[in-house]
Amino acid sequence: MSGNVLGERELILRISEILGGVENDDCAMIDAGERYLVVTTDMLHRKTDFPDIMNPWQMGWMAVAVNLSDIAAMGAKPAGVLIAAGLPPEADLYFIDELFSGFGDCAAYYGTRIIGGDTDSHDELTITGTALGFVEKDLVLRRRGARAGDLLCTTGALGGAGGGLWAWQQGVESDLITKLLEPEPRLAEGRALAKARAVTAMMDNSDGLALSLSDLAQCSHVGFVVQEETLPVAAGLVEMVGEEKARELVMSAGGDFELVFTVRPEGLEAARRACALTVIGEVVEEGIWMEQGGQRRRMEARGYEHRIGGMK
Amino acid sequence: MSGNVLGERELILRISEILGGVENDDCAMIDAGERYLVVTTDMLHRKTDFPDIMNPWQMGWMAVAVNLSDIAAMGAKPAGVLIAAGLPPEADLYFIDELFSGFGDCAAYYGTRIIGGDTDSHDELTITGTALGFVEKDLVLRRRGARAGDLLCTTGALGGAGGGLWAWQQGVESDLITKLLEPEPRLAEGRALAKARAVTAMMDNSDGLALSLSDLAQCSHVGFVVQEETLPVAAGLVEMVGEEKARELVMSAGGDFELVFTVRPEGLEAARRACALTVIGEVVEEGIWMEQGGQRRRMEARGYEHRIGGMK
Repeated sequence: MSGNVLGERELILRISEILGGVENDDCAMIDAGERYLVVTTDMLHRKTDFPDIMNPWQMGWMAVAVNLSDIAAMGAKPAGVLIAAGLPPEADLYFIDELFSGFGDCAAYYGTRIIGGDTDSHDELTITGTALGFVEKDLVLRRRGARAGDLLCTTGALGGAGGGLWAWQQGVESDLITKLLEPEPRLAEGRALAKARAVTAMMDNSDGLALSLSDLAQCSHVGFVVQEETLPVAAGLVEMVGEEKARELVMSAGGDFELVFTVRPEGLEAARRACALTVIGEVVEEGIWMEQGGQRRRMEARGYEHRIGGMK
Repeated sequence: MSGNVLGERELILRISEILGGVENDDCAMIDAGERYLVVTTDMLHRKTDFPDIMNPWQMGWMAVAVNLSDIAAMGAKPAGVLIAAGLPPEADLYFIDELFSGFGDCAAYYGTRIIGGDTDSHDELTITGTALGFVEKDLVLRRRGARAGDLLCTTGALGGAGGGLWAWQQGVESDLITKLLEPEPRLAEGRALAKARAVTAMMDNSDGLALSLSDLAQCSHVGFVVQEETLPVAAGLVEMVGEEKARELVMSAGGDFELVFTVRPEGLEAARRACALTVIGEVVEEGIWMEQGGQRRRMEARGYEHRIGGMK
């Protein structure tokens, strides 16, 4: 959080203390009878959160997608999205139509809709999305729950959005740019994994794999060993940026919106039936380690540093 | 919405059309089994929504209070609040502590808490609050439901926050400044009115009485006759600003956060047992009319125009 007096983690700790403790999950949870209501909110700004290349429809899509990814990470089914939008003076009719179509299209693509919101004027386009979902109490997935011996898994491939950002910045054409601009949160996968009853902890990797592992480790009081050669690298990434940069993007770039989760070893088959996944390591007692050719080294947490995950 | 191509109402209509229709209530409603989950979101900015005189604790209080007022207007009981805060570089530790204490204190005062959120950096302090609540399906109160012959009522007194703003701008000392800076949404009253089963439509008057009547009239497809001499004017307002200005503030100033509602005539006693209220007129077939000494004149909708209620 450049410019502010506290680092990101210090700020979150301080806020949590003031507020009497705030649970560290992708969503907040509220008891709703037989189910939990899960709810998440994310504030995005034109300059810091939307690449310049993005069109207004993509900004709308993105603002909904980042919130639905948090719903996915709890194993929940979305129940509605609210949008508060501060629109700048230069937002013309085309911009407004495209932006709100992006909100609506992303919600509809995932079987839900925009149910309300708030609109006002603001110097810089600022969008706060809020997504809600429901999940059966015995199926909810949280950041805590991983135990030593569980398998560490991810959906999809890693580093794609980071590669897209790199390509755009370098002026290189690449399919990965679409990964960056039109992220697809893993709602079907999150829900299927919850129903498989094999997952012990889950979150999304929106701020990068390294930060996700750090958060999961902290919440579950465990560590991880990542088998470096098993990491599913986005197609074309190594060819485009080289081996070393690809490794960095796979670990630290944000924007992929995959699910990172831990599975009881005896539940792996059930998890595989739920969705395509890659086992990338295992849960250990402490520390976060990268292993390659039998050699382990400690991993530093590095991620998508221009954003703060906030109280979550 | 100065600077934008569309007027407020046109923008909301257009957005609602793009999104396939958004209900016009203080909160969005989601089916949650035996109850409705109600949820609302409001984006506030330092320059446009917080008077310069406000301290950071009051900004925090306000950001939660405006959202809880929407929960109150549905007859719901609050179930949690989320805060997304974009903090400016000049926000020091004192500011952050006070701001977040304000969030937490307001939530706690109304029996709920801050359950999550998001924090990042932004040029101008921007806070999006999201409040959630539950209400039994047969008790929920909406903007539609008023019928000709119902009585028009309000909680509390009117024009207080507007008088506070006037006093501050004029450099006059007044207790009404506290009304402006530390609004107290009517959660107990809203809940008690819902349980009384006598109210046919309700909303809050956060953008002023005139705009509330206009919204209620539109949603319920009715009109109103307001008996001008019955309007409960905030204590000390007439003495401070004079008769004419007081009348203007009572009708058009925002920030009071009272509940405006309609009551079946045979339910008036039940409503009076629920909370202190003033009957200020009645529901008619069409038009919004001010009546004084037997003379009726049509009222123009005027309100707190620097903010847009958004999709609600």
